[in-house]
Amino acid sequence: MPYDCSFLSDLEVAVSFEEGDLESHAADWGTQETDKKTRPDAVVRPESTDEVSTVLAAADDRGVPVTPYAAGTSLEGNAVPAFAGISMDLMGMNEVVDVRPDDFQIDVQPGVMGTAVDDAVAEYGLFFPPLPSSGNLSTIGGMIANSASGMQTVKYGEVGDWVLELEAVLADGSVVRSGSRAVKTSSGYDLKSLLVGSEGTLAVVTEATLALQGRPEQIRGGRAIFPTLDDAAEAVFDAVRSGVDVAKIELIDGLSATMANDYLGSDLPDAPMTFLEFHANHGVEEEVAFCESVFEEHGVERFEMAEEEEMDELWAARRELAFAARAWDPEQQPLHPGDITVPISEYPGIIRYAKELEEEYGLPVPCFGHAGDGNLHYSVLVPDDPEVREVGEQVYRDIVERAIEVGGTCTGEHGIGMGKREYLLLEHGDASVDAMRRVKRALDPNDTLNPGKMFPETLEGGRVRLDADD
Amino acid sequence: MPYDCSFLSDLEVAVSFEEGDLESHAADWGTQETDKKTRPDAVVRPESTDEVSTVLAAADDRGVPVTPYAAGTSLEGNAVPAFAGISMDLMGMNEVVDVRPDDFQIDVQPGVMGTAVDDAVAEYGLFFPPLPSSGNLSTIGGMIANSASGMQTVKYGEVGDWVLELEAVLADGSVVRSGSRAVKTSSGYDLKSLLVGSEGTLAVVTEATLALQGRPEQIRGGRAIFPTLDDAAEAVFDAVRSGVDVAKIELIDGLSATMANDYLGSDLPDAPMTFLEFHANHGVEEEVAFCESVFEEHGVERFEMAEEEEMDELWAARRELAFAARAWDPEQQPLHPGDITVPISEYPGIIRYAKELEEEYGLPVPCFGHAGDGNLHYSVLVPDDPEVREVGEQVYRDIVERAIEVGGTCTGEHGIGMGKREYLLLEHGDASVDAMRRVKRALDPNDTLNPGKMFPETLEGGRVRLDADD
Repeated sequence: MPYDCSFLSDLEVAVSFEEGDLESHAADWGTQETDKKTRPDAVVRPESTDEVSTVLAAADDRGVPVTPYAAGTSLEGNAVPAFAGISMDLMGMNEVVDVRPDDFQIDVQPGVMGTAVDDAVAEYGLFFPPLPSSGNLSTIGGMIANSASGMQTVKYGEVGDWVLELEAVLADGSVVRSGSRAVKTSSGYDLKSLLVGSEGTLAVVTEATLALQGRPEQIRGGRAIFPTLDDAAEAVFDAVRSGVDVAKIELIDGLSATMANDYLGSDLPDAPMTFLEFHANHGVEEEVAFCESVFEEHGVERFEMAEEEEMDELWAARRELAFAARAWDPEQQPLHPGDITVPISEYPGIIRYAKELEEEYGLPVPCFGHAGDGNLHYSVLVPDDPEVREVGEQVYRDIVERAIEVGGTCTGEHGIGMGKREYLLLEHGDASVDAMRRVKRALDPNDTLNPGKMFPETLEGGRVRLDADD
Repeated sequence: MPYDCSFLSDLEVAVSFEEGDLESHAADWGTQETDKKTRPDAVVRPESTDEVSTVLAAADDRGVPVTPYAAGTSLEGNAVPAFAGISMDLMGMNEVVDVRPDDFQIDVQPGVMGTAVDDAVAEYGLFFPPLPSSGNLSTIGGMIANSASGMQTVKYGEVGDWVLELEAVLADGSVVRSGSRAVKTSSGYDLKSLLVGSEGTLAVVTEATLALQGRPEQIRGGRAIFPTLDDAAEAVFDAVRSGVDVAKIELIDGLSATMANDYLGSDLPDAPMTFLEFHANHGVEEEVAFCESVFEEHGVERFEMAEEEEMDELWAARRELAFAARAWDPEQQPLHPGDITVPISEYPGIIRYAKELEEEYGLPVPCFGHAGDGNLHYSVLVPDDPEVREVGEQVYRDIVERAIEVGGTCTGEHGIGMGKREYLLLEHGDASVDAMRRVKRALDPNDTLNPGKMFPETLEGGRVRLDADD
């Protein structure tokens, strides 16, 4: 339903009602052609915390939904309005506010791109380790909202682990600060961590203090090719279990390699392989050798360290896999991308399961991901046929359900958004989801912020407050 | 005021109304002789999640406060009843539930001692890195509740960073699970991190899945002695800023060294010094040399690596400092221990400030702490004279306020409890504390769990719900 957003014209904030703006804010990277899109009624572009606060307070008073938006790289509809209202575009708040190299800290506004953080601190020999693969295209605000992580998470942790302090605006317009510029604190509730991964449903982040790290003196990269996917997955598990100190350990199956070659004109072997990167200040060669010795026990066919240029090619192939899957066969399109994560001991098993389903139903299921974290991205490719599509959806769901069954999560780094709502209950149980709902109602009683996301009852089109029984 | 707790006798849970039990649960390590103690009306000792749930649901129905208690090592009255009612002693829930060495994970009940975790996983070459100094005397449940950290936090982070999943019981008796056994997740609100550091005011943790790490192959320890405290503090700052990879870096001032010598009969130099430990799999000697070269720029007088036995002595001295300060001079007793933490660039300055106040008011202010984190423990020693005591309290407060002013926190690892309530507003501001309050009311609307803690309004003796305006 449309909301009357004319009040925005009276506020001190840039507002647009233009078709093109409304249309572009109705989709994110996860939106597919078959999806029904909901346009916002207005797009606002605040340039300060005050402006964010003004808009939120006014919208909250009027019962108008506000959905934060930035680069739109989310994959589960996290930043797309479910109920029209206001799309709050934060790309204009893109300043690096302060760099404190002595403290390994940077303060940024939410619209700053991931790689812009690295650019801002490179002169001090520092970097921001947990950047997602899309770091050149996505914003720090979006990463915080979705609890993002990336290829280096196996060594350095998630984006949220590197957030020291947040300034954020609640639905009623009040401005909170949480966390500390001290590297540790036990002072009060950890609202900062509550906001990380809350997908804009609790607050709009307006500034973040991030921790940084000194760049490693030794970096080595390469790839390892295995006879079978199972060998590759078992090798990754064994490397992690053995404590190999690796900064990136990505796995792709033979099908994904084929797709990458088709898409990029590259000449990867059409075989299961892992891409690796090692970071150290001392002894990197020993660590590479340690990894190789573990991989040899799993029949590795080639273990090749590469020059930087070659590595760039490899990583390009890895980064483009999501696009490669879409471009591979016009007759078969991927369902939305899987993002399950399991305890590392379950990683070989969940990949075997995906491949069993691939064979059983005759639908391509390319598998790749941040293997060292136990994170598996997969797609199910289906033709334009509703019945086969339904089978594909079931394959997709079977893999998610298996992941949860073995102690994992339905989403390692993409968030719940609209695409994963059906799994929240299955993963966390009634009491835990109800506790989340109570927190949501406490901080956003009118369900102003990004309604229609995360909670399973919104699958039936409700807003959280409409389902409140108190 | 006393609460009628006779209903407990009808529940399936061990309950005690004995004087000795009530008395012992009215104090923690931070309780001083001059403090007025509030005894609980009953002590329950649940042995399962179900029993915790049963007691909480019954108490919540009847408006009876429940204060979780374990080893009692907290320092800010965190585990001591402010309003009588029930002390819930979790020491009986002390089982290691499962160890999964391949996943570097352990599941424990809350009453498991910190060092018992290390004992349980030693055979797999694993350890739990963020243990506090009191790890042999304190429980995992208490560490989680207070967001504890320790000597190795400079390298490995806080206890909370190593908590993967929690089972916990809310005030109404409902059992929630939060987090995942996958090493990363973006699924729903991070209730787990919200519970870490909530000091038993939101839930009672009944089981925790902790992450572990492989033990480093190389460990070196030693100490460095400096001409002045300022040199020592600047050297620590420079080492951290330079990215020296150190696992422990503790600083003690000359006064603390004297106190340790008196207390332990040790023969430390009565000089400012740092204790160090380095962990690595490769190149530990290079890292030690790097540290030494940084320290040399700050005039280090002696930089001595030590054998394991000597190190044990040094660390014993460091661990006993809190007791040493109490024993040093019967005429001058320490006020409760300071626990500020500041950005590392502010560390030399805050120590200078403490020492200026020491000189200005003529009251001993021994300083020590986890210097690499910017964490400073200090005491102000005062004679039994109310006027001088008031001066001492002011010195104590001045240091806390300065820490907050420079971007730090009033408590790095001890929590707010009752002792730091006056600083919560100063550190976080009205809107943030109000957001915490809304979360508290959402999850514990009757203020059943550990009332009288954390929130500044409880300084006037209120319970949170009594101050609710909605």
